[in-house]
Amino acid sequence: MTVWILRLGHRLIRDSRTSTHLLLVARAFGANKVLYTGRVDKALEEKVQNIVDDWGGSFSIEYCSDWKIAVKEWKIKGGEIIHLTMYGLPIQKFIKKIRLSKKPKLVVVGGSKVPSEIYEIANWNISITSQPHSEIAALSVFLHEFFEGKELIKSFDGAKMKIKPQKRGKKIITNDEVKYPL
Amino acid sequence: MTVWILRLGHRLIRDSRTSTHLLLVARAFGANKVLYTGRVDKALEEKVQNIVDDWGGSFSIEYCSDWKIAVKEWKIKGGEIIHLTMYGLPIQKFIKKIRLSKKPKLVVVGGSKVPSEIYEIANWNISITSQPHSEIAALSVFLHEFFEGKELIKSFDGAKMKIKPQKRGKKIITNDEVKYPL
Repeated sequence: MTVWILRLGHRLIRDSRTSTHLLLVARAFGANKVLYTGRVDKALEEKVQNIVDDWGGSFSIEYCSDWKIAVKEWKIKGGEIIHLTMYGLPIQKFIKKIRLSKKPKLVVVGGSKVPSEIYEIANWNISITSQPHSEIAALSVFLHEFFEGKELIKSFDGAKMKIKPQKRGKKIITNDEVKYPL
Repeated sequence: MTVWILRLGHRLIRDSRTSTHLLLVARAFGANKVLYTGRVDKALEEKVQNIVDDWGGSFSIEYCSDWKIAVKEWKIKGGEIIHLTMYGLPIQKFIKKIRLSKKPKLVVVGGSKVPSEIYEIANWNISITSQPHSEIAALSVFLHEFFEGKELIKSFDGAKMKIKPQKRGKKIITNDEVKYPL
């Protein structure tokens, strides 16, 4: 299942950390790619690419100069648009229906200011609680529900390092150790 | 069930937005209170208090000058400590066991630098995937799993405003409208 994320209105410096969190969540929770609009941010792209290089998987990030074109193309190609917003319909009532359709998904997340057309163009406006909180949390819980928890055990090809879960402390195994365990 | 969050090592300016996200997630996903260490941040406290005033509930935030004392007192009073870390045991294998114990929960989240003693003192070191992502996402998915999705329909007493979920667009109803619907 193809799942891309569209992050709207990235701002330099101010959004640097929240966009980093959002991108890493997209990767860790099973999305294939993030498009972002707003300001081009090479430092952000590099930071995320470094994580991909070390921790594996084929996740990628790409700047998008015009969200309208991206969204229209997505729909023309037969994909669906899911906009995460606190004003939308509750995830718990609609996630089964969303999962049923096997069309590629573009999950849209704001963004300081979300253009009102997004609400119209989206196939789904979905809320993760109707309370103010965080687009990072909204995306993680959406993907967790969408993938039914299977994303928690996703493996990432070509990882140079992996964590071996521990009751206490930290254990990272590197590529060589994966190939030649002690 | 009492669930408090302990946010470690808050830094002024740099962590302002990520800590705000984290606190709002704690509130929206059903935690009662957040303790935070690091730098005192009155602007952060005020921002979150304003949300509580408008959107209801009894959530609170308090600065904690010494996490060791807070954690020890929590344990002495019979509570449990759950530390969220990418190095910990996978949530999907242990959440049932964690839910079973009815002891008050203190959920610890980093933080730029997490002291190694936390790993020792915690009853549980729990990972939400073993990939690098975001403490905001980790907290939201942990609480979502812990409360089994019931947090999504939590109501917040004394709210001045509420969202009425919509297929498209935004609808906020204020206190007066709740009392006297049009």
